[in-house]
Order: sequence, then C-alpha cells, then structure tokens
Amino acid sequence: MKRFAIGLLLSLLTLPVIANELLVSKQSFSIDNFETFNGKRIPKVTVGWESYGQLNDDKSNVILITHYFTGSSHAAGRYTAEDSQPGYWDAIIGPGKAIDTDKYFVISSDTLVNAAVHDPNVITTGPATINPATGKPYGLDFPVVTIRDFVNVQKALLESLGINKLHAVVGPSMGSLQAIDWASAYPDWVERMVSVIGMVQSDAWTTLALEQWSAPIRLDPNWQQGNYYDGTPPTQGLTNALMLITQQALYPDFINQLQRDHAPLEKAPLNDINASHSVVNWLTNAAAQRASVMDANHVLYLVRACQLFMAGHGDSLQQGLSNITAKSLFLPATNDLLLMPYMAKQGHDKLVELGKPSQYDEITGTQGHLDGIYRIQQQADTLRAFLDGPL
Amino acid sequence: MKRFAIGLLLSLLTLPVIANELLVSKQSFSIDNFETFNGKRIPKVTVGWESYGQLNDDKSNVILITHYFTGSSHAAGRYTAEDSQPGYWDAIIGPGKAIDTDKYFVISSDTLVNAAVHDPNVITTGPATINPATGKPYGLDFPVVTIRDFVNVQKALLESLGINKLHAVVGPSMGSLQAIDWASAYPDWVERMVSVIGMVQSDAWTTLALEQWSAPIRLDPNWQQGNYYDGTPPTQGLTNALMLITQQALYPDFINQLQRDHAPLEKAPLNDINASHSVVNWLTNAAAQRASVMDANHVLYLVRACQLFMAGHGDSLQQGLSNITAKSLFLPATNDLLLMPYMAKQGHDKLVELGKPSQYDEITGTQGHLDGIYRIQQQADTLRAFLDGPL
Repeated sequence: MKRFAIGLLLSLLTLPVIANELLVSKQSFSIDNFETFNGKRIPKVTVGWESYGQLNDDKSNVILITHYFTGSSHAAGRYTAEDSQPGYWDAIIGPGKAIDTDKYFVISSDTLVNAAVHDPNVITTGPATINPATGKPYGLDFPVVTIRDFVNVQKALLESLGINKLHAVVGPSMGSLQAIDWASAYPDWVERMVSVIGMVQSDAWTTLALEQWSAPIRLDPNWQQGNYYDGTPPTQGLTNALMLITQQALYPDFINQLQRDHAPLEKAPLNDINASHSVVNWLTNAAAQRASVMDANHVLYLVRACQLFMAGHGDSLQQGLSNITAKSLFLPATNDLLLMPYMAKQGHDKLVELGKPSQYDEITGTQGHLDGIYRIQQQADTLRAFLDGPL
Repeated sequence: MKRFAIGLLLSLLTLPVIANELLVSKQSFSIDNFETFNGKRIPKVTVGWESYGQLNDDKSNVILITHYFTGSSHAAGRYTAEDSQPGYWDAIIGPGKAIDTDKYFVISSDTLVNAAVHDPNVITTGPATINPATGKPYGLDFPVVTIRDFVNVQKALLESLGINKLHAVVGPSMGSLQAIDWASAYPDWVERMVSVIGMVQSDAWTTLALEQWSAPIRLDPNWQQGNYYDGTPPTQGLTNALMLITQQALYPDFINQLQRDHAPLEKAPLNDINASHSVVNWLTNAAAQRASVMDANHVLYLVRACQLFMAGHGDSLQQGLSNITAKSLFLPATNDLLLMPYMAKQGHDKLVELGKPSQYDEITGTQGHLDGIYRIQQQADTLRAFLDGPL
C-alpha cells in the first residue's frame, strides 16, 4: 500500500508543468526470492519504473508499456524541464495524446537483465548485479531468464499497487513479446493487447539473427566467460554487437540519406587494410557511445530471452494464442528487416482463425524496425480508437 | 601461345562425356610484378581458371564468368564423373544451355585474395601466399586490392590466350561488380554485360553491412593482426563471419522451411546460457565446415575490395557508368536482403538515363540473395536471348 501511495503521489507530481509535457521520475520495486520460469531462485530482484497520469479509484484505467531490447521504462516525459530527449514514445503518451494520460494511468518498468545497467536512469537485476551469496557480480551464474520472467516482475509490481486488471498492454519490439505473453499467460488481466514491430514466437531465422548479436561479445578476449567485472570489460565485442543491432534495426534508405557524402574510394581504406571508411567510423563511434552505459553479459541474457520466446511459453504457439482473450492490435513496420511484417501477420492470422478479435495495420517509413519507435505517431488515431473503444 | 594451346586442348577434353555434362579441370595463370590499383607491386600473382566450350578462330565467342564472394572459377561442369556437385551455375552453362558451350568459349578465373585458399580446386594469391621477400606469408603486408585488380588479372589471362574482345561478361554478386567494372574500365572489350544480384557501387549501407563480416575475425584473439600463420588461425572468428554471411545471403522463408522443427523453448538453451538452440548449432557447424578451407585474412581483403567498389573506380559513379558502351542486363533477386534490388535498379536507371541499352528483370524465390545462384534457371530464356541477340 505504501508503494501504491508513492505511485499516486508521483502521478500527481508528474502533472504537466508545461502544456502537454510530463515531468517524471524513476522509482524502484523489489521482490525477494523471485522464482524464474526455469525454476531457479534469485534472492532479490529490483527494477525501476515510471508512471504517467493518475490511477482511478477502481484501478481500471491502467495501461502497461513494455520496453524494447535496448530501451528502458522511460517511455514518455522528461526527467527535468531541461532534458533534451523525452521518453521514446512521448509522441503518443501524454495529456491528450493517443495514450491519453488525462484518462489513463500509464506505467512502465525496466526489465530484468536490462542492457543499460550503467545508465543512471535504469534500475535492473542481472549478471552485473552483486550476488549476495558471493559478494561479487553474478556473471554467468545468473539464471537464464525469459520474457515470462519480465512479465512476472511487472505483475508483482502492479499487484503491489493494488492493480489486477490492465486496460491495455502496449509494447514495441521486445516489448511486444512481453505484451503478447501477458495476454496469453494472464488473460483475466489483459483487456487489450497492442504488439508494435513484434512477433509471436522466435522462429529459426530470428533465433539465428539474435545469435549473431551474441557472437562478438563471446569472441572478445576480455569477455572471459562472463567474469570480467574485476578486469577490463569486453567493450569492443559489445560495440560490435551494437553496430550489428543498430544496422539490423534500420533500413538502407535512411542510412544512405544520412551518409549521403559517402565515397566508396576513400583514400585511407584504399591504402590501409586497418583503416576504415568514414561511415564505419561513424557507426563505430555511435555504438561505442551506447556501449559505455551497457553490460555485455546483460546483452547475452536479453538475446537468450528473445530466442526462447513463444507466446504463452507453453507446449505450442497454438496453445499460447488460444489462451488470449484480449482484443489485439498488430502494428508491424513495412520496411522492418529485423522482425519483418510476416511475424506479426502470423499472430494476427492465427488469432482471427481462432475467432478472436484482432486488427492489423503497418507503419511505413525509411527507418525499418525503428519506424515502430520514431513513426508511431502515424498510428495515433488507430491506437486511440483501439484503446478508447469497447471490448 | 602455349597457354592458349593448353586452353584449346582443355576445351576439347571437356566436350561432354555424358550428354549435357562437362568434365573440367583447373589451370593456372601467373603474372610477374603485378601493379595494383593503389600503386603497389606484387612480385608474382597466380590464379586458377577453367573454361568450357571452344574458342573460335577469330576469338570472338568469349564469355567471361566472374565469381561471387565465397565462390571460385568453378562455374560449371564436374572435375570427375563422380563429383557430387557441379559448378555453381551449371544450370545455365553447358552444351545447349542458356550460356551455350556449343557456341561460346566460356572462361572463369579465381580472383585474387579468394577466400578458399585451402580448397584444392582454388588457386589464388593473397595474404596467405608466401611473400618472396620474407619467405613467410604476406599477412597484412599484402596490399589492399580492388575489384579493378581482379579485372586486370582476368584481362592479362585473356590476353595470354590472344583474346581482346568479350562477347559478354556475366557474374553474380561480387562477380557482378567485376562485370560492371569490366564494362566501364575496358569498354572496347565488352559487348554485353550481365549483372546478377549486383550493385554499381557500395553505398553507405552496404559498406557497413560488409564491415560486420570483418568484425568477428578482428575480434578473435587468434587473429593477431593477421600474423597467425605460425600459430592457431582465428577459426572461431572466421566461422562467425561465415554465419553472418550465410544468413544475410538467405531469406526467412527458406531457413524456416528447412528448420521447421525449430522449438523456441528447447531445454538446453533455457537452462544454460552457454548452450545453444539446435538451429544455431546447425548453422555453426555448416559455417565451421566452410571455414576449414578458408583464410580469415583473405575474407578481410575481399570485404575491403567490395567496400571500395564503384563502377569504373574513378571520380564518380556517373563517370563510371558513362564509360560503358556494352548492352547491359540487370537481374537482381526480389527477396535479396544483402544487395537489394534497388542497387541494380540504380545502375539500370542511370544507364537508361544516359541513353544506353539496358534491360532489367528480377529473380523470384525464397533464398534471398542466393536465388541469384540457385534460381538462375528462371532467367535462362532472357539470358539466352540477351547473349544470342544483336548489339
């Protein structure tokens, strides 16, 4: 109840100080003796969370936002009025926006094994966390966790606030995996499910694509089977992983437009096999910057959680989708090269086949997978109608 | 002249022993004191080559086939009647086929820095070659080479056979880069140019995608800045590079069909962060097998040659394409995720804009980039008409 009161207080504090602007702050939530999906125990898990808008009296206006692979609970608003960047979906979350914080209590939490452990605005538990049994970081002693574990932590957080019903759960990319698993695992909770740039299971292709992200980390001699916390971390491997992730999440038009001065016959790479094209240096630097707040082991665990994903985490996808009672909306991005539209289509088609209410539309743009983040505004009207409409 | 005689003899020997079957053997060609595009000297380069069909009296029936990134001069036929696999484009090269060896003298050579240095049927010169100055492999002392260098070696080979005109040059993927550069650099030679799954320059997107292939090799601690010839080679890095190359050259439908028993929630990866899904083990093993005949430094040099590519290797793409006088045919694959159809379209559109004869069509299929290899038969009639038709 205390946490609930704090949550309410926070949501009051986050009323817009500037018109249509949310000011938000991070809170923390812990669970003792957390049991993972694969039957292991973690003595204590702690995650960060944020909320926007006010919880109504019967706690029936809750929308849960679940974050993407390299994202966090910072879905909307700014931490201070001077913040240069708002949360990633600020375009659709806020007063009067598609996910209207004048109506809904919107809440989002950091996942377990969140990549950005060194970001001061992220609170997570994973291999970089101190293992109370040894006084040292878990490293690879941390159990493999699944999307279901992310969901179960969110459920405990919501229960701590007295919530037992979600008006909707909405997430992009890895967040979409959580949204679908929520709808399948806890159908009594979930009234509406929105999957943006998502999939209903990791197929063979995607499992391989994800594995490519782990490879550079494992190759880096500093990785040391995950025991690098006393030494030098595998920064180069992590940087290379992020270069791959970044490119796979984009689309040629966008990169070629951004780097329109690129010249194939640059002198340095023509004369020296160890020199790189300017465009390579640009991506390397951008990835190195992102790597500076991330932990390499956490990325390995995130990859694994996504590889293990199947809606419902049961015996079959069919069974997992059969459990869903929520009204569903799938919004893949047409030019997505990472989770192509066929993956969302598979979920939508199967739900329709099972006689369940489901809508499907595509987000267009030149940023590929990231159109689901940066062009979400395109689907604002559809989202609003879906969320405000009847079941 | 001696080489020419041997070539003729070989082409006689390779007359079909079984109906529509070519028996072929590898020959070798050397150049002393080869000057590279970037102005360096290589004391001796040696490459392998094969030919199919007979050179006519006025040497006007020559079709040059240029190979792809992980390919070789083995474009058609079998080395022995027992060979399980013919050359990669056997479907379209042979007696009575689209590239009809009853009419044409078809020739293909291994490129410089060919990846498969340990394949007994590949002859190449690159970082793994002994540097006569030191008695040890060149390693990274080998100069950076370009697609133009590959072309110049082929030109010397053809000249050694008394040839100075190409009825056509035809190549898939990296072979297409060579074909286009041939048409731009030596327009007096090239009457017809066929680019299959190709590009006319490496744009920013592609330069980055190629760089991702180098990253795992450079990360492998055994790479040692390319000086691994006395020790353990960077096999894991090379294997990871090949996993990436293989996946990028394919398309989801194909992999998902092939691995239709894939189950996301496999027990081993669920319980152990160091265990992998079966599908990952499958790709790892396939890549490790390919890696066993390849040299990691050669892959780095091939990547660089492709990154540096611009048709004509001059001041601009416009200038490079302006030089072309050949009749052109572009055949990208619709589902190609590596060199998407827009790249071939760019070349075709610019040539048409310049008032030059160019045709464009797409190869359809589920194997992505590799549809240009495995589904080339689809374009057999178009190819035949293009090759047999007037200028």
